[in-house]
Amino acid sequence: MERDIFLIGAGQTQFGERWNASLRNLMEEAITAALDDAPCTSLDVDIVVVSNMLAERVNSQAHLGALAASILPHHPPALRVESACASGAVALHTACSLLESGRAQNVLVVGVEKMTDTPSDEIAAALMGAADAEKDAPSGITFPGLFGLIAERYMHEYGLTREELSYVSTRHHERALKNPYAQFRKSVTSDQVSASPLVADPIRLLDCSPITDGAAACLLSTSCESSLKISASQLTSDTTSIADRTSITSFPATKDAAERAFEEATIQRSDVSVIELHDCFSIAALLSLEDLGFAEPGQGIELYKNPPADLQINGSGGLKACGHPVGATGIKQLIEVGRQLKQQKEQWGLAHNFGGAGVTCGVHILEHSIA
Amino acid sequence: MERDIFLIGAGQTQFGERWNASLRNLMEEAITAALDDAPCTSLDVDIVVVSNMLAERVNSQAHLGALAASILPHHPPALRVESACASGAVALHTACSLLESGRAQNVLVVGVEKMTDTPSDEIAAALMGAADAEKDAPSGITFPGLFGLIAERYMHEYGLTREELSYVSTRHHERALKNPYAQFRKSVTSDQVSASPLVADPIRLLDCSPITDGAAACLLSTSCESSLKISASQLTSDTTSIADRTSITSFPATKDAAERAFEEATIQRSDVSVIELHDCFSIAALLSLEDLGFAEPGQGIELYKNPPADLQINGSGGLKACGHPVGATGIKQLIEVGRQLKQQKEQWGLAHNFGGAGVTCGVHILEHSIA
Repeated sequence: MERDIFLIGAGQTQFGERWNASLRNLMEEAITAALDDAPCTSLDVDIVVVSNMLAERVNSQAHLGALAASILPHHPPALRVESACASGAVALHTACSLLESGRAQNVLVVGVEKMTDTPSDEIAAALMGAADAEKDAPSGITFPGLFGLIAERYMHEYGLTREELSYVSTRHHERALKNPYAQFRKSVTSDQVSASPLVADPIRLLDCSPITDGAAACLLSTSCESSLKISASQLTSDTTSIADRTSITSFPATKDAAERAFEEATIQRSDVSVIELHDCFSIAALLSLEDLGFAEPGQGIELYKNPPADLQINGSGGLKACGHPVGATGIKQLIEVGRQLKQQKEQWGLAHNFGGAGVTCGVHILEHSIA
Repeated sequence: MERDIFLIGAGQTQFGERWNASLRNLMEEAITAALDDAPCTSLDVDIVVVSNMLAERVNSQAHLGALAASILPHHPPALRVESACASGAVALHTACSLLESGRAQNVLVVGVEKMTDTPSDEIAAALMGAADAEKDAPSGITFPGLFGLIAERYMHEYGLTREELSYVSTRHHERALKNPYAQFRKSVTSDQVSASPLVADPIRLLDCSPITDGAAACLLSTSCESSLKISASQLTSDTTSIADRTSITSFPATKDAAERAFEEATIQRSDVSVIELHDCFSIAALLSLEDLGFAEPGQGIELYKNPPADLQINGSGGLKACGHPVGATGIKQLIEVGRQLKQQKEQWGLAHNFGGAGVTCGVHILEHSIA
């Protein structure tokens, strides 16, 4: 990083069905919480970066940068970024660049999505915007279908069983029990996951992250310090269509982003104590662990069957149990990593966020100074 | 600017009805033209910033950053930014930050919109996403309606006549005659404008920028030099709803952006020889000239009735006659300013781009070194 960037304030809304809250209400709630947590006032915000994927289509509201800025008394400059489900990480990367450029000293990053007012078939169609509208969409495939193909191939290549895959959701639900903001604070057994309704073989309902309303915000600063510092911010991309890949059981964009992030932070994988990774479907959690380099290909499941003592994976409950308000997820991941590092008095954490089938990937590494 | 940023390559597609070209085709055409114009290859592109407003909703394609990156052989990191009709200027501002941060040395900025495949009532509804979905949209108002109110009030305050207003479109069409990329290369008389169908009183059809397909791309660099340097990049915002303003005949966001840009470039208004400004409706051209400080309030029309010899306004034909593919407009403005400065051997030019009713504003100043 060209300058030291600190995470000086963080806040989020309850994730779930927030029928009585508008997009503006959700952003306002998260922004207020983040500012309350920070050693500065709203007037110190130099620029606002909003992360959102779907509002234009499902809420008839574009221009969310300005909408967020209008919540602050001085309506500072603002913009919205979108890179499908990776919008959050991309917003954080954009915020880091604005800070490193010297153009801003305090950047407010807000991620928001309001999905539960819209019928699920329309949400599925809108989410398909993350794939290639010319190459993928005409086949009629949806994201559960794409990840169904990936899961099928992964099981074929590595011998993963349906029963093993169900551990992933079981663990995520277990972790969410302790997260007051999580959408689903209830246990599910491995048998329940395996017996849940089939969505796109072999993907079942309890393999899928849900449709969620929610917002998360954080304040990044070069002028104020805190015990949490961003040590790496990396962004990568791959072909939009998975038909253009040589393999569908690994995402090169995640591999590249992780390599670059560890190099930027000058740490080893073994230094990391906390990870929030992108488990849009349970199979994605396994690919992510392997592509990030925390497990060998085909071995990701071991970290779910026998969770290691020195590495907490998706302590928030992940996208599966905490919920997945698309634009908010990447921001939530970073603030969760920070919260868990503080709580556990650990030094290094990593947030991993991707969009499409591993098309855009963002990896951030956070350092907690244990004084 | 923290570093010297040069405009080293520029290209655009024909603007208009491009029924045989997809979003990808349009981007590819503009990117190829920009790279052909630049002293580097596609592999030198470190990151791609895409500007687009409507594709998620009207083309079922989000994730345009990755889509643009997939056109390049090495699919570099990429993101999309959106701030309604100001998306182009916001993408340029984001690109400047990425360059100033040192994270990138060559940024490809691509603006694109594909609008003519969609019925005009759906385009009007999608464009209303630029306004406030809670405060403005429920009234049923559209953008021609909003600018109709603005025009009505402006005429009341300053005594502007319908006949005078018609000069604005007449001049824009006159300029577009020389622009091979313009959507409308035909003259219109002042009488034709005044007699064109009423859209939202007093706004008539020939007061409105059209529905357009098109793309524009440029390559900004800190590692290669050219005769065109970005001397200022400023972004501002205002309340999303005009109901929250004290006046509707002036846009403070434009005033602020202009003040800051002239300060950043350390030049005077009288130094500027070329302007491309945001004339989404003819009345907007007058507000823009006044808010940018080139005319006193109520006097903008004088610069259309008697065009000054030392200041070229919308030499491209403006949004009215060149066309307004929303996400591409801000990029087209900058590359047009560069082209005109070179052609006329002048030193200073300005690009002014706004979104919503003056909600987000971006002003860029370009310096042409006349060796």
